Amino acid sequence: MSFSPLLVQLIDALRCMPGVGRKSAQRIAFHLLERDRDGASHLSAALSQAVQGIGHCKRCRMLSEHELCSICSASGRDETLLCIVESPADVMAIEDATGFRGNYFVLMGHLSPLDGIGPEELGLSQLDDWLGQGEVTELIIATNPTVEGDATAHYLADLATQRGVKASRIAHGVPLGGELEYVDGGTLSHAFYGRRTVD
Amino acid sequence: MSFSPLLVQLIDALRCMPGVGRKSAQRIAFHLLERDRDGASHLSAALSQAVQGIGHCKRCRMLSEHELCSICSASGRDETLLCIVESPADVMAIEDATGFRGNYFVLMGHLSPLDGIGPEELGLSQLDDWLGQGEVTELIIATNPTVEGDATAHYLADLATQRGVKASRIAHGVPLGGELEYVDGGTLSHAFYGRRTVD
Repeated sequence: MSFSPLLVQLIDALRCMPGVGRKSAQRIAFHLLERDRDGASHLSAALSQAVQGIGHCKRCRMLSEHELCSICSASGRDETLLCIVESPADVMAIEDATGFRGNYFVLMGHLSPLDGIGPEELGLSQLDDWLGQGEVTELIIATNPTVEGDATAHYLADLATQRGVKASRIAHGVPLGGELEYVDGGTLSHAFYGRRTVD
Repeated sequence: MSFSPLLVQLIDALRCMPGVGRKSAQRIAFHLLERDRDGASHLSAALSQAVQGIGHCKRCRMLSEHELCSICSASGRDETLLCIVESPADVMAIEDATGFRGNYFVLMGHLSPLDGIGPEELGLSQLDDWLGQGEVTELIIATNPTVEGDATAHYLADLATQRGVKASRIAHGVPLGGELEYVDGGTLSHAFYGRRTVD
């Protein structure tokens, strides 16, 4: 016994989303068909428009529907600073939280040989060309503090060194507003050995 | 600072799905655009086909792309038994697990006055007409054992009584394979007071 063919097709198609299994896909399909058909039509249109319209900024690999993203095409950014992040969401987070006015390079992932993601998939030859142009003086590495992010950071630091560019990494330690008691051991140890002299 | 317009539109559209908030929508959008554009196109097509093609069986309200669903149009089903469930998934579960060969009526929800879901939204006048035709002799109520499901079950039992149809409810108690120690108090109490004589 199974659902009607179109419904089976919809449930299968919904499973392309990360974290959505068979049960969640069923629940989403029933909800959309029963309570929000307008939302489903709207989502269908938004998906096809996004797939057709959104590409990568040819300079920084940010998701963008233009050749150059809004940051790369803005005037007045500091061309000597280049910040490397894993995902477009990281760009937004840094733009919103910090006063950073340099450029970004978005890896769209991290080195993960087992998943077939190597330097070429992350556009590192493109980054190498950028560094070779000589404008950038500091590469700020803001990959995630995970095993893969750390490996990627090491690789990037080597790349910068070969091009004679200074590489830095954003600080890792105890988050502001956190209580030491509840911070995980790895972070606490990192913060302890990375202590700084108080001026 | 925000993403490009098409990406913002996609992230907003993804939030029509239950359980998907801003962060999940971002994660899904990046995943689809970066790693699975074919899946996204496929999902877009499946959504629009489903919205256009899938309606309700005019007899039992099951989701179906035909006037009558596969169960209602099948020959040889027992027309004297009618099982009431809340969702299409419940029909599949009962068909797969039991030998039930009667018909179903799918409420597509449960009575929930606060959400504006009353007897009319659940198609109960249609159910009343069906019972009035006189073929059905037993109404098997298989709504969920929740507060709303129980309220709906009472309403359905009244409806059946008025039409002179016997109403029954599927048994609630300790699930098979469960250990008493780990069963919640409500279920255990229900099972205890609903004990049956061993023949």
